[in-house]
Amino acid sequence: MPHIKLPEGLQGIRGPMAFRPETAKPLNELADVLLHQPNSLAPGERELIATYTSYLNDCYFCQTVHGAIAAAHLNDDHDLVLRVKADFKHAAISEKLKALLVIASKVQRGGKNVTAADVEAARAEGATDLEIHDTVLIAAAFCMYNRYVDGLATWQPQEEELYRQRAKRTAVVGYAAQSRDYIPQTETVSA
Amino acid sequence: MPHIKLPEGLQGIRGPMAFRPETAKPLNELADVLLHQPNSLAPGERELIATYTSYLNDCYFCQTVHGAIAAAHLNDDHDLVLRVKADFKHAAISEKLKALLVIASKVQRGGKNVTAADVEAARAEGATDLEIHDTVLIAAAFCMYNRYVDGLATWQPQEEELYRQRAKRTAVVGYAAQSRDYIPQTETVSA
Repeated sequence: MPHIKLPEGLQGIRGPMAFRPETAKPLNELADVLLHQPNSLAPGERELIATYTSYLNDCYFCQTVHGAIAAAHLNDDHDLVLRVKADFKHAAISEKLKALLVIASKVQRGGKNVTAADVEAARAEGATDLEIHDTVLIAAAFCMYNRYVDGLATWQPQEEELYRQRAKRTAVVGYAAQSRDYIPQTETVSA
Repeated sequence: MPHIKLPEGLQGIRGPMAFRPETAKPLNELADVLLHQPNSLAPGERELIATYTSYLNDCYFCQTVHGAIAAAHLNDDHDLVLRVKADFKHAAISEKLKALLVIASKVQRGGKNVTAADVEAARAEGATDLEIHDTVLIAAAFCMYNRYVDGLATWQPQEEELYRQRAKRTAVVGYAAQSRDYIPQTETVSA
């Protein structure tokens, strides 16, 4: 049961986002810039960074939702998502993405763990400063989203299929559009 | 030296925010809602939660900036800020804020560490659901900001005085206004 009274029937982050639309708006805008808007890293690659970070933080909701969105971008290849989580160094992804996932895993444990050598290794595989910046911020942002979802003990039914249909829509429309979902369902915020 | 080429002369998070104004905007809006906009928790209390989380994450820039902003809200009481970081259970703050700092410290280690008993203890001291929600999200958000600042190895001169004047201004104008600071200085983002 969630630690606070949240609107019912909304999985994971959607409960607290409906409870507090004022914070849902920038949270969704940040996800939209980082994961959905045009970028030299493909959306599927960025979703894999989000999924892997959420896996390291053991957040069922985020790793399942973003894993499903990653798969939606990657020809429905759910096996690839599982492989990245289990052992990305041997997954069928680019060497550049592997180097960026190393950086993400360092950020997940704490920012100071990222070394100049980690960044050089990514640059040697062709990563730009913007891609390195975004990788650091995606991993850092999911250290927030994961803690938000689990720190409130949100409702997270453990059935992947439940998340896949919505994931296909998110892959198309992005995150900023989702803030509007909450407006009609919002409870009055009592301060 | 920062891991990527950032605009020079901007401390801590200001460097990557000027480098990437598209993400700076929601990052500042989130901080503004959580820390600056009207709330039943005073701005000084919310800044102490941010400062304490940043201290636990060992982020010099964030704990110094938000410590200075907290002090600006709290009659320039820098000693109180130091006391909260060192031993908040014996600091001159409310029992409610102490219970919320316990929750923040659990979130910092990972969302699943927050227990129903932690939340009940805060509620017994008068914390509302909104205050508990915002405490979880402030702590989660600073797990992001701290990793962003340190994960890019940003420039963080170790002189508190440098941060205090700007902190006084931030305490008055908030964070959303800061996004506008970056617009004229922004480099072209190369993708």
